[in-house]
Amino acid sequence: MKFCTECGKTVVFEIPAGDNRARHICKHCGKIHYENPRIVAGCVVTYQDSILLCKRAIEPRSGYWTVPAGFMENGETLPEAAARETLEEALAEVDIGVMSTVVDVIQARQVHIFFEGVIAEPIFGVGEETLETRLFKLEDIPWSDIAFPSVRMALEHHISIHESGFQGLRLNKTAKSSIG
Amino acid sequence: MKFCTECGKTVVFEIPAGDNRARHICKHCGKIHYENPRIVAGCVVTYQDSILLCKRAIEPRSGYWTVPAGFMENGETLPEAAARETLEEALAEVDIGVMSTVVDVIQARQVHIFFEGVIAEPIFGVGEETLETRLFKLEDIPWSDIAFPSVRMALEHHISIHESGFQGLRLNKTAKSSIG
Repeated sequence: MKFCTECGKTVVFEIPAGDNRARHICKHCGKIHYENPRIVAGCVVTYQDSILLCKRAIEPRSGYWTVPAGFMENGETLPEAAARETLEEALAEVDIGVMSTVVDVIQARQVHIFFEGVIAEPIFGVGEETLETRLFKLEDIPWSDIAFPSVRMALEHHISIHESGFQGLRLNKTAKSSIG
Repeated sequence: MKFCTECGKTVVFEIPAGDNRARHICKHCGKIHYENPRIVAGCVVTYQDSILLCKRAIEPRSGYWTVPAGFMENGETLPEAAARETLEEALAEVDIGVMSTVVDVIQARQVHIFFEGVIAEPIFGVGEETLETRLFKLEDIPWSDIAFPSVRMALEHHISIHESGFQGLRLNKTAKSSIG
């Protein structure tokens, strides 16, 4: 980051008064630019005993398999983000269930949050960022060709949930007040 | 947002090619500025049968009670963020447990994520953003003076967890690969 988003002047990178971390600060208008981790929301989608995976058509990890997942947008909830990504990448309308896996991805400044999801019928397709969409039986999951460690963790959690009966985390309804 | 962070020229707000949402785009250098929800990480801290609450010294909701919580920073995990906020606001060193409550706060473009936490000794204090820090027995929680709906939800979840034996969500270890 080189320029202030509010006034267009050059920013400096230093610790603001009363803070303990360096931020991009505009000495001209005083704006402090905070940067925070981004959320990737995804979904382990099942139809009966099978899991829906997408082969990525884009980098990073083009040609490798993933569950539908992508950046959460402003104006949507986490389950809405997971459902939207499933619709965009797999052209499938999914019923989102519990939150099952959360992974801190520090270097990328991301938090990956995965839900369980179900499609009632095997209706799906190939979205713009996808090369191929396919249902896999658990024993056929292509473990050596999974795109990301966090996706592998989500799939492993999914399996352990079904083995252990763990219920995952149900989200609260939306609250309307912010902190900070 | 008015100016490009990379080149300082004026941005426009329109839908980029291949996208379906308006973004702040720089026509000069081509940079697309994405804006995404921010994460607030917090912790329901207990000592024996009591819960540690902080009376806020800052707006919004100055003078009302909250659990320690604040914006997650780049370079830390969710549990680290919750522990750091507990140290900053309540001067307490907490052992972070399971994730127990997640709340979408759409209008504020935030996701609030709360953990269970324990302090081994009743050692705490008053941080810079806090007027008072106090241990409350469950029956003494000041429900009508809780700062935010999401904090109320986290406290309610905490109580229901203890009544139901629900275990919450354990986070995976950090993965190193990003999506997107």
